[in-house]
Amino acid sequence: MSLKPQKTVVSGIQPSGKLHLGNLIGALENWVSLQDKYHCYFFIADLHALTTGYDNVKKFKDDINEVAVDLMAVGLDPEKCVIFKQSDVPEHCELHLLFSMITPLPWLLRVPTYKSKIDEIKGKDLGTYGFLGYPVLQAADILIYKADFVPVGEDQVPHIELTREIARRFNHFYGNVFPLPQDLLTNVPVMPGIDGRKMSKSYGNTIALSDSPETIRKKVNLMITDPARIKKEDKGHPGVCTVFEYHRIFNQPNVEQIRRECIDAARGCVDCKKEFLNHLLRYLEPIQKRRAEIMEHPKKVESVLEEGRLKASKIAAATLYEAKTSMGII
Amino acid sequence: MSLKPQKTVVSGIQPSGKLHLGNLIGALENWVSLQDKYHCYFFIADLHALTTGYDNVKKFKDDINEVAVDLMAVGLDPEKCVIFKQSDVPEHCELHLLFSMITPLPWLLRVPTYKSKIDEIKGKDLGTYGFLGYPVLQAADILIYKADFVPVGEDQVPHIELTREIARRFNHFYGNVFPLPQDLLTNVPVMPGIDGRKMSKSYGNTIALSDSPETIRKKVNLMITDPARIKKEDKGHPGVCTVFEYHRIFNQPNVEQIRRECIDAARGCVDCKKEFLNHLLRYLEPIQKRRAEIMEHPKKVESVLEEGRLKASKIAAATLYEAKTSMGII
Repeated sequence: MSLKPQKTVVSGIQPSGKLHLGNLIGALENWVSLQDKYHCYFFIADLHALTTGYDNVKKFKDDINEVAVDLMAVGLDPEKCVIFKQSDVPEHCELHLLFSMITPLPWLLRVPTYKSKIDEIKGKDLGTYGFLGYPVLQAADILIYKADFVPVGEDQVPHIELTREIARRFNHFYGNVFPLPQDLLTNVPVMPGIDGRKMSKSYGNTIALSDSPETIRKKVNLMITDPARIKKEDKGHPGVCTVFEYHRIFNQPNVEQIRRECIDAARGCVDCKKEFLNHLLRYLEPIQKRRAEIMEHPKKVESVLEEGRLKASKIAAATLYEAKTSMGII
Repeated sequence: MSLKPQKTVVSGIQPSGKLHLGNLIGALENWVSLQDKYHCYFFIADLHALTTGYDNVKKFKDDINEVAVDLMAVGLDPEKCVIFKQSDVPEHCELHLLFSMITPLPWLLRVPTYKSKIDEIKGKDLGTYGFLGYPVLQAADILIYKADFVPVGEDQVPHIELTREIARRFNHFYGNVFPLPQDLLTNVPVMPGIDGRKMSKSYGNTIALSDSPETIRKKVNLMITDPARIKKEDKGHPGVCTVFEYHRIFNQPNVEQIRRECIDAARGCVDCKKEFLNHLLRYLEPIQKRRAEIMEHPKKVESVLEEGRLKASKIAAATLYEAKTSMGII
């Protein structure tokens, strides 16, 4: 038994449809392991999704529900962590507004992801007030629970730095209310999509956690292997093969042997894919089993989110009260 | 009895310390008359005050209380209108965040008051995210009650135009939730301060509604009259006299006679000031009497604001629910 109180971790995921292997390896597996070590607040970032998806909300409600199911399916346990929907806790919005008052515009304009994301997402007007304020909302999400750690990928590190800057500035003006959260860098390989590019919903190259075994089999068959290897007798180059990348992630113990056999032309691509497929299906089996169970009890998802809302609100309301009192608003 | 349901009016005032004659003539007298004709929501705009006052909140809590007392003293009647504190109704913040997602940055950068206020308030960094978003928050304040009318001065007309633009854009994306509120232009003379410039707290030239008769007498004595009139025998020029401006506002029935007597050198400045002082004190007497009564029951102010919070929250929560449902968030 530790005498130190547990540290707090906060992280969110946008409801952009069914979650896929990239989400699982990039974030969710890490979340599942964090829930045993920390006070964890994991939220469905529906408000953040509006920063880029404001003009297309037709499937928004379904997407939110899908993500909730997926989060529970991958193994987040409502007994061990708080799972909730961001918009269910209005204190995020209130703290966002208070933070907006002390956040200099240049801080936001300087965030590296700001310009790069505008360049990346073509054909949509991202020149909105809310898109610029994304990192302010993120700071509110994190600080409303007084997080110690935030698990992020490398590209999000500047956002956590900005969260600390906002916390520092608030504390400077109004007194010491907020901690300075640290990033928990999740050092994971980039998950390739079935076409070899980064797996991403916008590329249409994902394997969803909820894809049926038959769909997954078809997708694996479509995967690009070494394009220079025409016949089975040709020696392979695992370094340029998407299937080999997947072996590395899902079939670690056998990866050296596979590499050797590929280079020596001792294994063909068809068998190699089949072996990977079996590993992947075995890997996804418990997730898909839990998913099926959850789908049989849709009310369960609602009640988990409601319970999460209550737990999160309690902490969020206390922090907001402290922040408002320190500012003299109450 | 009208068969038409009453229209809704929304307006707010920043808690920048004790209210003064400029506030009374510029806004509050109008509010008092509006409460008999409309569903009125009048709020203490504490969150707006943070857009410029974020770095100095020492007196914030007292200022908020002073304004609440003043609002009741001038004759706003909690039986006739809803009086509340903006930050007490978190739905304003939630709707502000939702609106931020659909508000193009250029709309905000183009608001005429944005640049002019930055120029006006020197020595303070107004280059914050929150200051830029002032009109978004104002749109949320107005639309969360589905206001039909917003009483404003001329300089605020572009803000109401922007409110309509945001309402239109929301309705376009998500369905017809919000009305397009109209400005109720309050056509009042600019109230001069005791030095002849516009009466404003930042110029230190105000007469507060709560100033004692003795303080008011001293301030009236300091007022600048026609500088070219040295002796009583000199003919006066009412057009350049601050005291004459005040007669125009507070002593309308006698204003023609006063003008004539001044031009004819038939009245001296000392008598003229004395006459005005008596009018002003008589004018303020009921306000000051109510103020004294309220000050004897400080709990009364609290309970009025609490009652206002409950009434405002009920409508605000219903509108927010409608907005969130139309977006698919719930």
